[in-house]
Amino acid sequence: MGPFLVESVLSEAINLVETKTLVIDEELRLESGRLLGPLTLAYETYGTLNAERNNTILVAHAWTGDAHAAGFHSREDRKPGWWDDLIGPGRLLDTDRYHVICSNVIGSCKGSTGPASINPQTGRPYRLSFPILMVRDMVRAQKLLLDALDIPSLVTVIGGSMGAMQALEWGIHYPGMVRSIIPIAGTGRTSPMAIALNALARQAIYNDPLWKKGNYKPEHQPVSGFALARAVGHISFLSEESMAMKFGRRFTARDGLFDFFGQFEVERYLEYNGNNFPSRFDCNAFLYLAKALDLYDVAWNFSGLEEALERLTCPSLWFAFSSDWLYRPEQTEEVVEVLQGLGQPVEYHRIESDYGHDSFLVEPEKFTPYVGSFLERVWQRVQAETVAKEN
Amino acid sequence: MGPFLVESVLSEAINLVETKTLVIDEELRLESGRLLGPLTLAYETYGTLNAERNNTILVAHAWTGDAHAAGFHSREDRKPGWWDDLIGPGRLLDTDRYHVICSNVIGSCKGSTGPASINPQTGRPYRLSFPILMVRDMVRAQKLLLDALDIPSLVTVIGGSMGAMQALEWGIHYPGMVRSIIPIAGTGRTSPMAIALNALARQAIYNDPLWKKGNYKPEHQPVSGFALARAVGHISFLSEESMAMKFGRRFTARDGLFDFFGQFEVERYLEYNGNNFPSRFDCNAFLYLAKALDLYDVAWNFSGLEEALERLTCPSLWFAFSSDWLYRPEQTEEVVEVLQGLGQPVEYHRIESDYGHDSFLVEPEKFTPYVGSFLERVWQRVQAETVAKEN
Repeated sequence: MGPFLVESVLSEAINLVETKTLVIDEELRLESGRLLGPLTLAYETYGTLNAERNNTILVAHAWTGDAHAAGFHSREDRKPGWWDDLIGPGRLLDTDRYHVICSNVIGSCKGSTGPASINPQTGRPYRLSFPILMVRDMVRAQKLLLDALDIPSLVTVIGGSMGAMQALEWGIHYPGMVRSIIPIAGTGRTSPMAIALNALARQAIYNDPLWKKGNYKPEHQPVSGFALARAVGHISFLSEESMAMKFGRRFTARDGLFDFFGQFEVERYLEYNGNNFPSRFDCNAFLYLAKALDLYDVAWNFSGLEEALERLTCPSLWFAFSSDWLYRPEQTEEVVEVLQGLGQPVEYHRIESDYGHDSFLVEPEKFTPYVGSFLERVWQRVQAETVAKEN
Repeated sequence: MGPFLVESVLSEAINLVETKTLVIDEELRLESGRLLGPLTLAYETYGTLNAERNNTILVAHAWTGDAHAAGFHSREDRKPGWWDDLIGPGRLLDTDRYHVICSNVIGSCKGSTGPASINPQTGRPYRLSFPILMVRDMVRAQKLLLDALDIPSLVTVIGGSMGAMQALEWGIHYPGMVRSIIPIAGTGRTSPMAIALNALARQAIYNDPLWKKGNYKPEHQPVSGFALARAVGHISFLSEESMAMKFGRRFTARDGLFDFFGQFEVERYLEYNGNNFPSRFDCNAFLYLAKALDLYDVAWNFSGLEEALERLTCPSLWFAFSSDWLYRPEQTEEVVEVLQGLGQPVEYHRIESDYGHDSFLVEPEKFTPYVGSFLERVWQRVQAETVAKEN
């Protein structure tokens, strides 16, 4: 029993992580022209920054994600970070080699400055006085964080969905710092369909009298409207196929087929998950991030897609999922084709998966092999250049 | 000027139609086992029933449709019936030849018995005491109407969406009466995705305090929730492509990109159309019909799809639209393949169209030529058999 016990204690010790916060006493000029600051940024790191300070990988999270990408916060924690399968010793993002960092985006509510934060100018929460953000602003804030941590370069920026948007913005706006990017299930610009779905979510919240134009108390969130808004999201993250596999047309066992309030299982699932959500996310933050998603357009403030993508000079590795109807493969392909036309180093895989937009979380094994070999090549180049510099 | 004026007056006279109602003093036993009656049925007819009483075509409407399929109700009317392009002298459903009938389904609010009707047993509106209906029940009520009108056979039953479901039920349950069916943009059973979207619509209404578990006054409908519910439907009827063509990523001119409440055009369209809807439809009827759609399964009370479809012995003509993601072509193809396997006379066309589920209303010219030649063959057979019988 002895050795097993020791090993188990050790591995738990390795997996214990904590969310750190850094206050940046600066005002960030946002795309809207407004200023936001000082900024608090929540982040986690895994692995060790090497002496050359060139082994960092930035992991960017999706809409309602957070800085807790891997490991456990305590021994009692039952769920690890959201991409734990991919981050750790010997894993895809191998913490024996890489220093991995994940930070909560500004506008969120998971430790970084967002609409629920106290506005230092007024001493009261921002709520709807919080400025409208774009994904580009989130990336600028991350850059301030990396500067503060004295990290001058990134092996890669990797992320799914809104994380893919951040990766692309990083590649375009900080070409000198980023050695590669890996956008997964992303888009070059949000489609009218995705905007329309977010419009439903917004309206569901606006319709809830408890929302009070954002002036609800944290302990009295507009639960009904917010749960419905989340259910809209859930539908868009799933696919026809994944719903068929998971629920089919099964009716909830406790309900009668001819009861007015009787539910199909898919309906109960949406209700259950929606209702749990307000306990772990701030409604206004949800709305601000939805807005940032809607406004997302890589060509924003460029003359067009070409002018924006000309700046992406590092190698990029793209994934889209066949059953993703929120950010359809065609949307990634539009970007990839422009990059190919520009002769830039680009690798693209359209992955067959039945899990819709969520595939990047549900079936990582379908794309991680490509990430592994891509990263290996990038890392070898980073090392070769370090050696060259030293000589 | 003379001849033009006469022609114009004449054509207007021809196009003036009225909605008739018939009270059937019978109790209909529903699939749920409950009884409903007496029944009021609203219907319109176009063209003339011939002496052989064998030239009737039944047009079945979709979710929020009504009996007013063609013509105008008055000279001031600005909009004709919902399928006016297809019904009239010399049109696809040629009223010089056919007697066309369209009736409002039970459960609706456009003249037929539904949850807003007065329950004769109590003298008060049914509201949520109205029984849950299935599409099969709607078809049974239509059969009672045709019996009352002494119409013993139908050249075809044609309809889109919920109308396609009715056509299929007609073919299966009244094989002796129906000479052909034409289901357009339908499905053999509603998918979990479609159910999930209806679940959002339902929840939007339940969340509205004005709904009062269905006990709102007709003049005080739960407007906000109902408008949102309708917007869910609108999204599912459109497609990625039609939204891109219609709205793109254009922002509403009056709004600022960085306004919290600023809207994209697609968002404003959904809001505008949703807000208009409660003035012309009853919220409880909307909910009952949504439930009937969710429960739709052609194999209901059969051992499976095969046993149900074995009964469809008449020729059937099917259409599905490439961009329809609510009732996807694969769902129609599932039914068509079983029919083909059973060796039954079936014709299927997958129509390339960018207009999603709405294609059957927006681009009829893409499928009407097939309908024309199919109908011609059916009609020739009907006439040949009539001659044979007379000899």
